[in-house]
Amino acid sequence: MDTVLKLSLYAKTHDYEMRVIGVPKTVDNDLMVTDHTPGFGSAAKFVATTIKEIRRDISVYSVKAVTIVEIMGRDAGWLTAASALPSVSGDAPDLIYLPERPFDADDFISDVKRVMQERPYVLVAVSEGIRFKSGEYVGASNTVVDAFGHKALSGAGKALEVIVKNELGCKVRSIELNLPQRCSAHIASLCDIRESLEVGASAVSAAINGATAVMMTIERIDGDDYATAIGTASIADIANGVKVVPDRFINSEGNGITDEGIKYLLPLIEGEVSAVYEYGIPKHAVI
Amino acid sequence: MDTVLKLSLYAKTHDYEMRVIGVPKTVDNDLMVTDHTPGFGSAAKFVATTIKEIRRDISVYSVKAVTIVEIMGRDAGWLTAASALPSVSGDAPDLIYLPERPFDADDFISDVKRVMQERPYVLVAVSEGIRFKSGEYVGASNTVVDAFGHKALSGAGKALEVIVKNELGCKVRSIELNLPQRCSAHIASLCDIRESLEVGASAVSAAINGATAVMMTIERIDGDDYATAIGTASIADIANGVKVVPDRFINSEGNGITDEGIKYLLPLIEGEVSAVYEYGIPKHAVI
Repeated sequence: MDTVLKLSLYAKTHDYEMRVIGVPKTVDNDLMVTDHTPGFGSAAKFVATTIKEIRRDISVYSVKAVTIVEIMGRDAGWLTAASALPSVSGDAPDLIYLPERPFDADDFISDVKRVMQERPYVLVAVSEGIRFKSGEYVGASNTVVDAFGHKALSGAGKALEVIVKNELGCKVRSIELNLPQRCSAHIASLCDIRESLEVGASAVSAAINGATAVMMTIERIDGDDYATAIGTASIADIANGVKVVPDRFINSEGNGITDEGIKYLLPLIEGEVSAVYEYGIPKHAVI
Repeated sequence: MDTVLKLSLYAKTHDYEMRVIGVPKTVDNDLMVTDHTPGFGSAAKFVATTIKEIRRDISVYSVKAVTIVEIMGRDAGWLTAASALPSVSGDAPDLIYLPERPFDADDFISDVKRVMQERPYVLVAVSEGIRFKSGEYVGASNTVVDAFGHKALSGAGKALEVIVKNELGCKVRSIELNLPQRCSAHIASLCDIRESLEVGASAVSAAINGATAVMMTIERIDGDDYATAIGTASIADIANGVKVVPDRFINSEGNGITDEGIKYLLPLIEGEVSAVYEYGIPKHAVI
């Protein structure tokens, strides 16, 4: 969107009749003004589905174990918040930590201990971008070292894994959802696919009708049923901004998502796309 | 299956009329005698689908980058072999390393360099259980160290990531498919689900008919079309054995799967299961 801003300013300065429209797309859902971004709903559906499946998997064991799932989101915890969606069937993570709140290792350990009083398995969802109060990324506090002493960053999930191992000594596993959360097209959200097409088509119409220096937005219409309208917003209000998860979507303990957050997220993952399968795997349209 | 053996021996020794039947289930596909195991086809379908999606994702970038996907399989590389299935659309990994062959870091780096002469992105699939010639697990050669010096194993994918980083200095990412490869029921194989039901029902019939100390097996019937029959085999021939990927399924360079391997794997991932969705995510049957 910064490029849209720059290109549109350049065209204006040089009196060049080129219209520049930002067409949003990011699984991070962190663009300003728009209610949500194309791509997010499908990634959220993958996250919610996978969290529920992981919870089913770990719930069959009777040994004390902590499972930590690291989810994309450097500055905003939208995708991690989507892990709360299986709560309707009681399959949400027990604890959810977003980058919107400073991460405290002591609070984390006491949260885990509390859940363990109820059941042996504890499921934790965590944004890759969580930071300590000091501002340091939790994922930067640990390093991977090979036989020659070479180092690499280990990530937030692995860092929490080490914390649990040291503090509680129980079985612990960290899972980084990694690239699949942004490319698992086989479990796309129909709502997302429909809106994406609509946003793209509307962008072309807007350009033909003279618009420039704007980004297409999805506006949610108030009411009991989910409904949206496509709009535009000045690119200057969007470029270089980050829309974080609002306070009212995060519980007061900073370790879970509120009902209002679930209500916002739920319609975005609704509906399934029938993928075409060939030789047992989905066919991709390659242009 | 070792427990089946022990229980059936105990019943025999004590002249106790209890019939013990092994009902195979493992995503690892490493049980002796049976052509394949219930669970494997669904896990293989997830692996193949995800590999194809990851390849689509990484292929849009022009910067040199190596992506390493670590797949389950401690002693046998069956699930990693399934990563070759997207080859029908040209979407298989460029390089596939199984625990059936000793892993050589120099050969690996020269393999990656060769692929990079053709295109900037290189996709590698690797079993968690690969070992160096010395017998040491590749995944045990690296450690994660936290700020206090506490250590944990990093895994084979991370180890290869560090090797690439040091030897080639290019962008590199490792992805551990982790638990989702054994619990992503939303993308189960219809072939697998059908056979699983058949194997379970046949086990009950076998027990009623007097069988004991056996495991149910799936036998593949020779012919152009895929067909199977359910059989039984003595548990003594199965317990504590491991069926590895045969030589004829692995290419001579030890970095890929042969056409014969693909032919074996393909029918096992065929067919889709229509999951029931509720609130945007699959419903699970909880007993």
